[in-house]
This record gives sequence, structure tokens and C-alpha cells, in this order.
Amino acid sequence: MPSASASRKGQEKPREIMDAAEDYAKERYGVSSMIQSQEKPDRVLVRIRDLTEQKADEVVWVRARVHTSRAKGKQCFLVLRQQQFNVQALVAVGDHASKQMVKFAANINKESIVDIEGVVRKVNQKIGSCTQQDVELHVQKEGRATVNQDTRLDNRVIDLRTSTSQAVFRLQSGICHLFRETLINKGFVEIQTPKIISAASEGGANVFTVSYFKNNAYLAQSPQLYKQMCICADFEKVFCIGPVFRAEDSNTHRHLTEFVGLDIEMAFNYHYHEVVQEIADTLVQIFKGLQERFQIEIQTVNKQFPCEPFKFLEPTLRLEYCEALAMLRGAGIEMGDEEDLRFVYDTDFYILDKYPLAVRPFYTMPDPRNPKQSNSYDMFMRGEEILSGAQRIHDPQLLTERALHHGIDLEKIKAYIDSFRFGAPPHAGGGIGLERVTMLFLGLHNVRQTSMFPRDPKRLTP
Amino acid sequence: MPSASASRKGQEKPREIMDAAEDYAKERYGVSSMIQSQEKPDRVLVRIRDLTEQKADEVVWVRARVHTSRAKGKQCFLVLRQQQFNVQALVAVGDHASKQMVKFAANINKESIVDIEGVVRKVNQKIGSCTQQDVELHVQKEGRATVNQDTRLDNRVIDLRTSTSQAVFRLQSGICHLFRETLINKGFVEIQTPKIISAASEGGANVFTVSYFKNNAYLAQSPQLYKQMCICADFEKVFCIGPVFRAEDSNTHRHLTEFVGLDIEMAFNYHYHEVVQEIADTLVQIFKGLQERFQIEIQTVNKQFPCEPFKFLEPTLRLEYCEALAMLRGAGIEMGDEEDLRFVYDTDFYILDKYPLAVRPFYTMPDPRNPKQSNSYDMFMRGEEILSGAQRIHDPQLLTERALHHGIDLEKIKAYIDSFRFGAPPHAGGGIGLERVTMLFLGLHNVRQTSMFPRDPKRLTP
Repeated sequence: MPSASASRKGQEKPREIMDAAEDYAKERYGVSSMIQSQEKPDRVLVRIRDLTEQKADEVVWVRARVHTSRAKGKQCFLVLRQQQFNVQALVAVGDHASKQMVKFAANINKESIVDIEGVVRKVNQKIGSCTQQDVELHVQKEGRATVNQDTRLDNRVIDLRTSTSQAVFRLQSGICHLFRETLINKGFVEIQTPKIISAASEGGANVFTVSYFKNNAYLAQSPQLYKQMCICADFEKVFCIGPVFRAEDSNTHRHLTEFVGLDIEMAFNYHYHEVVQEIADTLVQIFKGLQERFQIEIQTVNKQFPCEPFKFLEPTLRLEYCEALAMLRGAGIEMGDEEDLRFVYDTDFYILDKYPLAVRPFYTMPDPRNPKQSNSYDMFMRGEEILSGAQRIHDPQLLTERALHHGIDLEKIKAYIDSFRFGAPPHAGGGIGLERVTMLFLGLHNVRQTSMFPRDPKRLTP
Repeated sequence: MPSASASRKGQEKPREIMDAAEDYAKERYGVSSMIQSQEKPDRVLVRIRDLTEQKADEVVWVRARVHTSRAKGKQCFLVLRQQQFNVQALVAVGDHASKQMVKFAANINKESIVDIEGVVRKVNQKIGSCTQQDVELHVQKEGRATVNQDTRLDNRVIDLRTSTSQAVFRLQSGICHLFRETLINKGFVEIQTPKIISAASEGGANVFTVSYFKNNAYLAQSPQLYKQMCICADFEKVFCIGPVFRAEDSNTHRHLTEFVGLDIEMAFNYHYHEVVQEIADTLVQIFKGLQERFQIEIQTVNKQFPCEPFKFLEPTLRLEYCEALAMLRGAGIEMGDEEDLRFVYDTDFYILDKYPLAVRPFYTMPDPRNPKQSNSYDMFMRGEEILSGAQRIHDPQLLTERALHHGIDLEKIKAYIDSFRFGAPPHAGGGIGLERVTMLFLGLHNVRQTSMFPRDPKRLTP
């Protein structure tokens, strides 16, 4: 049974692998097989209008549409609907549900049909928003019978006409605008980097091949090497917005094969934290700008997808990776759930700094204090990664060593390494996934909702 | 001998074919074959310091570097240099030189070495900018011995550090910024359209193929179909900036296989001229913004590449294609030299409207007054096309007919045609080539000068 929390392939961080290994509830949820009238289980499906105090503490099965869903920390609240009746259902991490099962519930699309097993519980305070006000369903098992996301995407032009879609993409246009406005005010220059490249310079595994006249070429996995070459060419502070291509066979809520990268690269004086601060400030300016200029759009989306307003601190919280790991472990929480840090610090935006060198790309600058660490960082929104960045190696000798260590063919990155031979300033940068920022700012649960015409291993149309 | 004015393949306008056919001077210029000491011609090469009044009216051969070049209408002025001596040379359309030969001269890169045959002519007014002030060379034959553009591009990081390159790309960043600033103020929404598409929807000839997991996909030749689908999805006014891919084996001064498209699409009320006016106004706002905010950059580029300031009228001059054709023919000028219109109207920016239906893409709306014409337009800067646009067919029936007429497989554009079945407003738009706008605004002569890392059939690196 494919689950929505399938682990990501490729250069993945170890925490996600741990994550997948520990799902003690994995038999309790998933995509149901299509009912082809093969079996006749003696399971009674209860009607929502019959879920009253009289049924309190009974275990029941319900088949219903998902009317709304709202995840918050370790809980997910669903409103289940049958015609004009609806009831609140709760999936919470505990004996019956794992973290992954809560995530799965949160990712079920509205209007999907689900089969749910749960205990009917009396509530202390009436649930004003539901017709069944006196009880809620505590979910023990859930099966998603059908999803309509594909239907929506197949008919994307009509789906984009809904007020929610209109608001989502107007806000996304605003993110791009605020990103550029902020950076141009900071003296950055916008650059355009080629997408067709001659060699799979960032590792061959996840790259698309293009027929280029009589030869092969590749689609750029990021503008990384080119934005660094612009720093070597003395542009000092550059940014670009453009498509990024990843031939990863990942079918998760947050992976696309083509997405829009908001990229920054910048020379600094003495410490890469100068750059980290500029990037964090840029994101804060985006959050502020959205909350100031796009309230109507935020409220429109919230009507269909209720969500807490996005919270952030100034200055932005920055923790070292090891420090955060130790803190979470001290609290009995396994690393891999960066989301928990949100609640500890009451912020939806934070930075983890100093990742292990081994899990970062070859061009990442090692940490001079600790050779196992690196001057690299990720930024998180609502507990999910939206940016990966680092100080880059600007010394051609060290860069060559690190490339060899990673088994990279030097011939293929000759132009890149040569760029550093004629003098390069220290520099750092990062790449932001536009669709993820939109998704997480609005508290949505699938990156396909924030890509107009999403591309994944199974979808190339419309 | 390859000439710089090689005709463009593909869906080309007839004027360019005429153009190439009429070069009466084609034996008089071109790229010289590499001297491998095979011949010993008894040609005397004269030194520039010896070009004085004493040599007046003599025909001489000179080998020199191109120090500067400046094209103006039917003339091109070169300054030729040998160490500390230099002389002005003039290539002018006439008995010895064709229009194409002048263009060829204008496209020779600075610092190239040329062999030139010309008549030494006394000048009435001293040429203050040259060491040889009393004479100039009237060119009769020219051969470009070596060009250094490839060397520059091979070492692009260093080339980009020059003050000229810095100015060119800072101004180009400004073009993008002004484009978006103007459109966002006009209420447009920025969209992101996919670059990997499932079918070569705009004709299969010029499309790059991508391996997509177990299937093939293609690189979008424009965001055309997607921006129209956004209009069908009620976004009303949209724009995007992104890479455009053309698998054309064209090696001219104005073609790249990957360039940056500035695209606009907009619903209108009654007449597509509403859209033409919005686009023209956007370009005028860009020109004004550049002249207001980027004077330092313009002057920096002018030092190396002297050029008249860019001139434009308000409102923008719009002529019908047939009207312009008739006017030029009346003046004894063949169509294909839209540049001449610049001088007639004293503007570097104008629009030609109502192109023949036969030369435009299948989705172009026919002209209701004349079925052989269409509601389509090109926009020109300094006589070269920078935008192609049209009213699009928004009726699925007519669109189907026109697609069939063009021999297009309807199955491959089903999602596109279906978009119009659920109600589509009348709309029009256009696509602008960013590198061409930068090149022509600055009066440069090769689009590779305005692409940071240009891609053409022969160049994929750096």
C-alpha cells in the first residue's frame, strides 16, 4: 500500500530513512484497493446522522467524503461529510496512530472518499461547525478509497478557476515579486542561467537527458554552478528564478520533477552567516509582504483549507543541527521531526545550521572547527525544508579534492573549477523551492496544489 | 564562405528568403580561410601609418584589428588599428558593397583581425578620433581572418568581468525588472509554466526531445499554450519570464537554441489592438526606465560599442504589413529591410500589423476583413524583430479546423483545445526575446553578447 510519506530517493538525509523505518501503525492506514465486488465483509457502515451520544464509546466504521482537514502538530482534524450531515474526526499520534498516519490523513484531498474506523467519543464542548455537535470520532484505521486530485489536475483549467486556486496563484505571483523586490533593493542583480548543459555536473543519477543535435545534453538540476560562476565574474550578489529539473522517481506530497527555484548567491566578507542573514531577511520580507498585501488571498484559501497564520521570529531562529538533535532526543523525540521545533520555539520558520559534511554536495565548505561538519544550512517552514544552502568552496585545489572524494569526473566540471583559478571571493547561497513556500505558507498539504501544471514521474499533462 | 546573414530555417517569413537571394556582393566578403602558408599571393599589405594624403585614390590592402565598429543605416564605420595607429574605414551600400556586406562588417567582433581592400579617400573634415586624420578607407572587399568571440565565450567568466559585460547584464536585469514592474502595476499576474511537455505541440521540427523515465517528452518551444490555458482559467492578464527552447540549426547573429522569453497574454474586450497597445506601452516603459535608471550602464557600453541613443515615438508607430511593403516598394526598396522604416519615421521602435495568415502559427485569428490576412503583429527594434504576437483563436471549432489545415495531430493538443470548450474570452499576446531587446537597445550586433552563457548548435559550454 503506497503511503504518502514514502521516503525520498537520492541524496537524502538519514533522518528520513529512520522516519520510514519506524512506522508502527503502517497496517492501519493507506490507499484502499479498488472495490471490484470480490469480498463481502460483514462490516457495518454507520451513517453520520446516527453518530450521537447514544453511540458513545462504540467502535464504528464510516464511509464519507473528506469535507475539510486541518493538521496541527501531532493531530489532524477531519470533517467527514455525507450529504448534509457532518462530523469531526480526530487522528492523533498515540497507540492507534503513528506520526506517519497523521501525515497521511493530513494529505488526503478534500472531496476524497474515505473508510474510517474509530471510537465515538462524547465531547465536552459542542462542535458548532458540525451537524453532529455532541460527539467526535477518534480514528483507529483509515483507508482512502478514491482521491480526486488526479481528476482535478486532469481538468486543471477548470480547477484553476476556483476562488481557492485563483488566490493560491495570485499569492504565488506575490512571492516572486516580493523576492525580487527585496533583493533588488539589496543591490542584487538578476541573472538568467542556461537550462541545457553539456554534462550532468551535479551527479548523474537524477538528471534528464536531452537529444542535442547529434549529441546528448542534460537539463540543469539547479543553477548552482552558473550562479557561482557569476560570483567569480564579479557580479557579487545575484539571484534568479527559473525551472529546476530532477529526474527523481519520487511520488510524495513535496516532490516534483520540474519545479521553480528561487536562487541566491552572494559574496561575503568574513563569515557565511552574513549570507544566511540576508536570505533569512529576504524570506521574512516575503512573509511580511504576503501578510500585508495578500490578506484577501490568504483568507480565501483559509475558507477551504483552514490554517493558523504563519508565525515567524525576528531575528530568525538559527540552531545548529547537532544542538537541535540533542535537544529533541533529550525530549524523547527522534530527529526527523523538525516540526516539533516549531512548537518548542513558537515559530513556523527557522534555520538549522552546520549539517554533517557527508550528507552535503561536494562543493560545500567544511567547517573549520569540526571536519565532520560543514558550513551548510537548511531553512524550514512549518517543519518542512524549503531551502538548502551553504558556503561554497572557492579554492580550486580544495574543490578538486572534494570532487574527487565524491567520485565526480573532473573533466565534466572543468569550466566550473577553472572559474575559481582566476580569483574568487568567499561566497554562499541557497535555493528555495517556490511551490513549497506557497504550500507551507498557506498550510496546504501537497505541492501539486501550488504548481499550475505539475510534473511528476506519472504526470506530464496537461 | 559562411556569411553572417545566413537565412533562418523553419517557419520563416518570405522576406528573408528574398533577402538572401539578392546579395550581389557575396564574393566580396566573408570569413577568410585559415592561412596555412599554401599560397604566396603578390598582394602588398599597406601599413596604417602610411595611409596619408599621398596615397589618395589608390586601392590598397590592409590587415588590421577592428578597434570599433558602428553601423548606421546603410553604412558601417570601422576603426582599424595597428598598434598605436588607426584609420577610419567605411563600408556603404553601393556598387562594391551590398546591404548584407554592410551587415557582415557590422557584426565583426572588436579585436578581430580583418583583411580589407579599399580606396584611400581624402576627407573634407579631419577625423579627430584617429591618428590618420586626413584620409579614410572606402572598403571594396573584406575578409575576417580570425574572430575572437569564441575565445571570449570559452573564457566567459573572465569576459563577464569587463566593464562592458557588467553594464550589459546589469541593464538586462533592469529590463526584466521594468517589464514586471510595469505589468504588475497594470494588474497582471506572473505565472510559471512547465518546460517539459508531453507532445511537440507547436510543430515537431524544432523541438528538443527529453528522456522522461521510460518515455519521451519535449522541451517547450514557448509558454504559448500554457499562458492561453491560464486565460481560459480566468487569470485575465498574465506574464512569465522563462527559458524557451528551439532545436533550430541556425547559426546567425540573432538565434540561440535557448533564450529567455518575456511572455504576455491578456483577455480583451472588443479588439486585439487593446492588447497591442498594452504591450507597446510596456516596451515604452522599459525604454524610458532604462534611459532614466541605467544611463551609467548605457554610457559604459557605448564607450566600447558607440551607438545612437534609442529613439521611440508615443504613441508607438503601427503600420500594416501590406501598407509598409507598398511604401517601401514605392521608394524602390525591397521588403525585408524593415530597417529602412526606422529612418523614414525617425523611430527605432515600431509595429507591423496584419501579417499574411499563411506565415503565422495555426492558433492565429484570421482577419475578418481579409481571409488572407491575420490579426497578428511583429514589433521591431532598430529594424530587427523582437516580438511576435497575435490574437489567438478562442473558438474550439475554428481552432480545430486551423490545426487540421496545418496538419497538426489533434490528439497531441487535446488538453489545449479542450480548454476552450468551457468558455474562453477573446485574447491576444506576444513573446519577446530578452537577449534581442538588450542587444538592440544597446545597438550591439550579436545576441551572444547579451546571453551570459549562450547556447547555439555548436556551443553548450561553459
